[in-house]
Amino acid sequence: MERNLLLTLQYDGSGYHGWQVQENARSVQGVFQQALFSVLGVRPDIKACSRTDTGVHAREFCLSMKLSHGIPTERLVGALNHFLPPDIAVTGCRPVPPDFHARYSCRGKRYVYEIWNHPVRNPFLYGRALHYYHPIDAELLNRAAQHYLGRHDFTAFCTLDKREAGDFCRTVTESHVERDGDMVRFTVAADGFLYNMVRIMTGTLLGVQQGRFAPEDIPAILQSRDRSCAGVTAPACGLYLQKVFYDLPEEAAANEE
Amino acid sequence: MERNLLLTLQYDGSGYHGWQVQENARSVQGVFQQALFSVLGVRPDIKACSRTDTGVHAREFCLSMKLSHGIPTERLVGALNHFLPPDIAVTGCRPVPPDFHARYSCRGKRYVYEIWNHPVRNPFLYGRALHYYHPIDAELLNRAAQHYLGRHDFTAFCTLDKREAGDFCRTVTESHVERDGDMVRFTVAADGFLYNMVRIMTGTLLGVQQGRFAPEDIPAILQSRDRSCAGVTAPACGLYLQKVFYDLPEEAAANEE
Repeated sequence: MERNLLLTLQYDGSGYHGWQVQENARSVQGVFQQALFSVLGVRPDIKACSRTDTGVHAREFCLSMKLSHGIPTERLVGALNHFLPPDIAVTGCRPVPPDFHARYSCRGKRYVYEIWNHPVRNPFLYGRALHYYHPIDAELLNRAAQHYLGRHDFTAFCTLDKREAGDFCRTVTESHVERDGDMVRFTVAADGFLYNMVRIMTGTLLGVQQGRFAPEDIPAILQSRDRSCAGVTAPACGLYLQKVFYDLPEEAAANEE
Repeated sequence: MERNLLLTLQYDGSGYHGWQVQENARSVQGVFQQALFSVLGVRPDIKACSRTDTGVHAREFCLSMKLSHGIPTERLVGALNHFLPPDIAVTGCRPVPPDFHARYSCRGKRYVYEIWNHPVRNPFLYGRALHYYHPIDAELLNRAAQHYLGRHDFTAFCTLDKREAGDFCRTVTESHVERDGDMVRFTVAADGFLYNMVRIMTGTLLGVQQGRFAPEDIPAILQSRDRSCAGVTAPACGLYLQKVFYDLPEEAAANEE
């Protein structure tokens, strides 16, 4: 009997050209599909919650797939982790309703952008955080981040891409900056994200730090709908897909990490 | 005028065959000396606080060297970091008295052994923590760790090595196990450490977890002076040199991390 399964993954994106399979480049999806083939001998169609770019990390990445193979879900997790390289881990697997689709059923996602804010780099965070030398005023950036909240047209915060549909409006439900010792974290959740949106939001916050923008300039940047009005695209290495939101029955949700 | 300088380093040891220069193997010392030569054009004699083994990390590693070159200490730090790879960082440099020696002046060191205790590995901790699948009772291990405190002959906790002198007595001043979420940390400080001592202490604590030993067996293991009575040598990847203790004037100490 065919089951629809939701799998959760974590990965360090440093060694990958993003999630999606590409010619002549190592991708998380390619490596995952190879592990799946090693375990089951089949190549099911995988629906992913989203793509991640080269060097972007995931603390929770979700995918769904329909599987006729009868392998118990716990055994599938263990077997996949056996075949996957150490920088990718399957953290969970559970059955979901037949109409569940990791991308189309997604209600929203949370990203975190991590900045190591110290004059000296941290050897343990190479490829895992942006290194920012000069002191960051996290409260100032947090004031700026409040202006992202709510429903806005985020065209100014998007690298234009033929893949994008015409609607650039997104609803941001969480947006804050916090300091934890020498680490500064920008957390943002929304019902959806445009291409490079979190990295441009981060780059714009760093523009506030650098005096290029005031926190109160962000509404005007949003209204401009002009990419050149926003800040730079912050490097991929600091970006983590942190959480993917679905409406799923409580019982199934209890299997979550 | 010749200055005696104390430098502090951090490094991720994953990519190195330990601290010490070896033929045909990449060592932290070798890479550091090359960076020093790139900056100053000289190869001063480096006195290190200790050696670290292949794959062992350092959050604070200390070395001293006598330098005739007049480069200001802040500039030396910046220039070395420019030439060093991203998994090594110089975090400080300060002048110390002429008779200071990073090894002989050392009063003691603190190590931390980190264990990721979760059924699924953590892709962000590969090479940076031991992955231990089964639940660890950190309070049980902490009770066992108390028996390491004080002055003991640690022959049973030493990989015998021709380099070691005849005195195997060391004074352990801190020894405790704590849980922080899914991470379990064993912290141990002593006036000195024998070869593989922390890794065998950790392996013995894990032997307590596995029921091979009771916490109260540790005094008898110490008294046996027999390596085969203690637990296994835990893998290098979880071990961090955390702190090196010196008696130095307060003013100089204020420059510390």
